[in-house]
Amino acid sequence: MIQHLPATIPDELFAAFADSLAKAARELAAQGWTPATSSNFSMRINEEHAAITVSGRDKARLGRDDIMLIDMDGRAIGTDSRPSAETALHTQIYRRWPEAQVVLHTHSRTQSVASRLFAADGVVHLRGWELQKAIPGYTPHDSVLDIPVFPNTQQMAELVAHIDAWLDSDKPLHAYLIDGHGIYTWGSSMEETRRHLEALEFLLACELDLRVLRAS
Amino acid sequence: MIQHLPATIPDELFAAFADSLAKAARELAAQGWTPATSSNFSMRINEEHAAITVSGRDKARLGRDDIMLIDMDGRAIGTDSRPSAETALHTQIYRRWPEAQVVLHTHSRTQSVASRLFAADGVVHLRGWELQKAIPGYTPHDSVLDIPVFPNTQQMAELVAHIDAWLDSDKPLHAYLIDGHGIYTWGSSMEETRRHLEALEFLLACELDLRVLRAS
Amino acid sequence: MIQHLPATIPDELFAAFADSLAKAARELAAQGWTPATSSNFSMRINEEHAAITVSGRDKARLGRDDIMLIDMDGRAIGTDSRPSAETALHTQIYRRWPEAQVVLHTHSRTQSVASRLFAADGVVHLRGWELQKAIPGYTPHDSVLDIPVFPNTQQMAELVAHIDAWLDSDKPLHAYLIDGHGIYTWGSSMEETRRHLEALEFLLACELDLRVLRAS
Amino acid sequence: MIQHLPATIPDELFAAFADSLAKAARELAAQGWTPATSSNFSMRINEEHAAITVSGRDKARLGRDDIMLIDMDGRAIGTDSRPSAETALHTQIYRRWPEAQVVLHTHSRTQSVASRLFAADGVVHLRGWELQKAIPGYTPHDSVLDIPVFPNTQQMAELVAHIDAWLDSDKPLHAYLIDGHGIYTWGSSMEETRRHLEALEFLLACELDLRVLRAS
Repeated sequence: MIQHLPATIPDELFAAFADSLAKAARELAAQGWTPATSSNFSMRINEEHAAITVSGRDKARLGRDDIMLIDMDGRAIGTDSRPSAETALHTQIYRRWPEAQVVLHTHSRTQSVASRLFAADGVVHLRGWELQKAIPGYTPHDSVLDIPVFPNTQQMAELVAHIDAWLDSDKPLHAYLIDGHGIYTWGSSMEETRRHLEALEFLLACELDLRVLRAS
Repeated sequence: MIQHLPATIPDELFAAFADSLAKAARELAAQGWTPATSSNFSMRINEEHAAITVSGRDKARLGRDDIMLIDMDGRAIGTDSRPSAETALHTQIYRRWPEAQVVLHTHSRTQSVASRLFAADGVVHLRGWELQKAIPGYTPHDSVLDIPVFPNTQQMAELVAHIDAWLDSDKPLHAYLIDGHGIYTWGSSMEETRRHLEALEFLLACELDLRVLRAS
Repeated sequence: MIQHLPATIPDELFAAFADSLAKAARELAAQGWTPATSSNFSMRINEEHAAITVSGRDKARLGRDDIMLIDMDGRAIGTDSRPSAETALHTQIYRRWPEAQVVLHTHSRTQSVASRLFAADGVVHLRGWELQKAIPGYTPHDSVLDIPVFPNTQQMAELVAHIDAWLDSDKPLHAYLIDGHGIYTWGSSMEETRRHLEALEFLLACELDLRVLRAS
Repeated sequence: MIQHLPATIPDELFAAFADSLAKAARELAAQGWTPATSSNFSMRINEEHAAITVSGRDKARLGRDDIMLIDMDGRAIGTDSRPSAETALHTQIYRRWPEAQVVLHTHSRTQSVASRLFAADGVVHLRGWELQKAIPGYTPHDSVLDIPVFPNTQQMAELVAHIDAWLDSDKPLHAYLIDGHGIYTWGSSMEETRRHLEALEFLLACELDLRVLRAS
């Protein structure tokens, strides 16, 4: 892949972001959270640009060349590659949360199933789990951590509008699900965002298990 | 194993097909999808020939010598080895889909259980999952992806006839289940076929989870 | 461990058996089927002797020195080590099946749970699974493969008597469960016995999954 | 991390304890039992001191520098690092059981779900599982092994008092759960404590599976 970078982004800088994204993608793929070329990942480079995964690549084998540059309107910069179909969801997050540096979207079995199960409610209420503390703003284990579930659509503009409406509420938000699809989460560093993702996967899995067990 | 090849198939060509099949088999075995020497795999070499796994071998340890040549009637060519018992299902696919280059048949826990659960219906209806997009012809997530389930029998001719009847419908088809048994899927390359298989395993697993959760 | 061997068993022969058992134990431990030093494994050396795992060792780290010699009454030969508490079950199998060369007893979650669930029935009926063909005598998938479940007891003589009573029936038998405990299976080689064990674990897991799904 | 050690604890001794803890932490993290920097681990060094994990570190990457010294009141000794928030639970165990040398606290999906499910009862009754024998004092498989479940709280003093009240009963005790949280277990060596933890995880998982299956 040929990637022409703007003068403000040195080659080494972009390469470092690309390597970091590719490594995270391979590790998440190894956990089975990115089936069949699904999922996408990005990092903010500066106020106007982000690095993001090229559409349709196998995440288990991702390398530096599978990462491309976009601007905050989701346009490809300096390359003919096509960014992920859901790029608009990444740039929406960077625009609304100035402190967001990383966006991870995965597609695990637990995430997909939870999104279907709670789609009618529009939200998953998580309560009573110690691990909620891994999400900023939810220190006490008895607080309620709400993860919204948005209806799926192939029209990104529609999805962006749904999310904007929810975001205009005042609740802290660090993640959302899309029905039948997967999770989006973000944070101020790759390390923090991976921790959010790991905690949310765990919490959703526990919630589903408990539901089946309580009905038994 | 001694394999005498026809003049139209150079040694190196057959070896490349055999290596590709053996590698795929070992990787699928590592995921636990080929228990106790079950499962079989093939690749079309030309209009008249395919490479296929020899019957009864441990897929976790498969090598080049565990792959043999057959013609499109399923007869062993240039070897005394016995091809998989279900060879007729592979050649049926190659005859009906000129673009099919690879057939993978695995036997995961999810595939086996789903085949039993939906055997009476004769079909699994998949709907509402984003990952359906991994199967050609099902771009919108709200389309219905039907995976037929055929009754199991040790008589291959009977099974071939069942499948032929279904195939005469006009629906796109990229996979079927056999009751109590496993899945068959195919595609135009090893990469595409692996992607189909990975997506179908994921979709079936999600569908089963959701069924238990919705009853809770 | 000091092991004095009878003249009829050369050092190299015993070492080969011990290495084969230790390797199988480590591989089964890696699958999580031998929790907390449970499980035991043996191989027949000749009509009068078998090699068996020493009691209480961590199966994930098993080596040649964790294997000892016993006679067919379960007595330690040429060593002060204590054989597995359930040695009498191994020697019973060798006495009753002259063709049995290997006995594997594991303790997976699926095996333990299935044994509890079907303890009151005294048997697990497996029917309709293609993989039943992995067990000799069950070629057609629509035959019924019965796995008896015996009540657990710390008195081996009692357990041996229970098993003897069942064995006096005429059915083929290649495995049994003990309530709350695990599975015993055997075969004419390590390869065949591993195949039996892998198939039975798979079949029991499918049967449990299907039961929950059918109730949904 | 700079760690100033008292004269009674040579550098090499502390390093050996730290390495042992870090290795156990990495292995337990690899099993997925320490999601999102949760879990903590300690070893008694002498009557007055223990080594314990520093708060908030990723257990999958734990090294010698992530282990610090505390006294038996839970105070950091010779370092500015902050010990785990739940240090008081570790020192309580060392004070009450003179033979306890190791305390492991993990946070697996099974442990978290079981703690929620049985929180109202305040106890998990385990009965009928052969693997109960892995816990000292429960030799016969038909004894009842009770694992108490304590209410979760961010106030350690409250939790310590709850646990003290339970401990004043005469039952043998080798583990407890905290609601929505995870398990604490201990033993006279790292090997024994790992065996307890592995057995308890297995027993809880079996108990949950059986509950769902019995309701089917």
